[in-house]
Amino acid sequence: MTSDIGFQAALEEARKGAAEGGVPIGAALVSADGRILGRGHNMRIQKGSAIIHAEISALDNAGRLPASEYKGATMYTTLSPCDMCTGACLLYKVMRVVIGENKTFVGGEEYLKSRGVELEVLDNTECKELMAKFIREKPSEW
Amino acid sequence: MTSDIGFQAALEEARKGAAEGGVPIGAALVSADGRILGRGHNMRIQKGSAIIHAEISALDNAGRLPASEYKGATMYTTLSPCDMCTGACLLYKVMRVVIGENKTFVGGEEYLKSRGVELEVLDNTECKELMAKFIREKPSEW
Ligand SMILES: [Ca+2]
Ligand SMILES: [Ca+2]
Ligand SMILES: [Zn+2]
Ligand SMILES: [Zn+2]
Repeated sequence: MTSDIGFQAALEEARKGAAEGGVPIGAALVSADGRILGRGHNMRIQKGSAIIHAEISALDNAGRLPASEYKGATMYTTLSPCDMCTGACLLYKVMRVVIGENKTFVGGEEYLKSRGVELEVLDNTECKELMAKFIREKPSEW
Repeated sequence: MTSDIGFQAALEEARKGAAEGGVPIGAALVSADGRILGRGHNMRIQKGSAIIHAEISALDNAGRLPASEYKGATMYTTLSPCDMCTGACLLYKVMRVVIGENKTFVGGEEYLKSRGVELEVLDNTECKELMAKFIREKPSEW
């Protein structure tokens, strides 16, 4: 399943973020034919960044690609995407967004659907536990 | 007028982008009380970046700010914001977006309005000329 490699990459990124003491959210952008184009995790705490969310990091690490590379791509993210990351998926015309969980936070899911993006929510336990631990330990950072 | 310092900063950023051979789009984030919190320009060509649009650059350069700093803020941008930058304005709850021009491109204006963000379009000649020159000289980059 294509979804496996992308989701596993996103989850590994979230774990890296947790190990760094950061917001444990990871993402991976996977091409229509199953290649990981970019992956990354939220760097708000590590870099004091207002913009490097997980999905932005994955797009950043993918670099500047021809439009054909984004065509049919899937964005995997461990948490429901915020408005900025929702917009980034729309800008790059990602076909599908696979979300690890949306119990901790619900972002632009309805807007993505209204713009024709397919959504899948996995309700993954580890994704929820990573966020729960982070919020418990660093409530002021969430 | 508060709008003057923000728009002038955005326009100066767009000119810098042009001088660097980049996409000539600039932005500035201005607080409710008229301070420039951050400013920047599109770095797609200069940094090979898929994410450093003008508005993202302005938010990045502003750094991590307390929510109170964004409250009532205005984002000035020389060109109508794309979906990603639209989402970034929503994430940070910018109150108003002032757009230099929207003849070259129309981004998420309707969505911003639907989410309660005030919009102002200046239809500024220099903003349009900067983009026209860029598109004429580097059509494959636009
Ligand atoms: Ca994030
Ligand atoms: Ca831009
Ligand atoms: Zn985000
Ligand atoms: Zn943009």
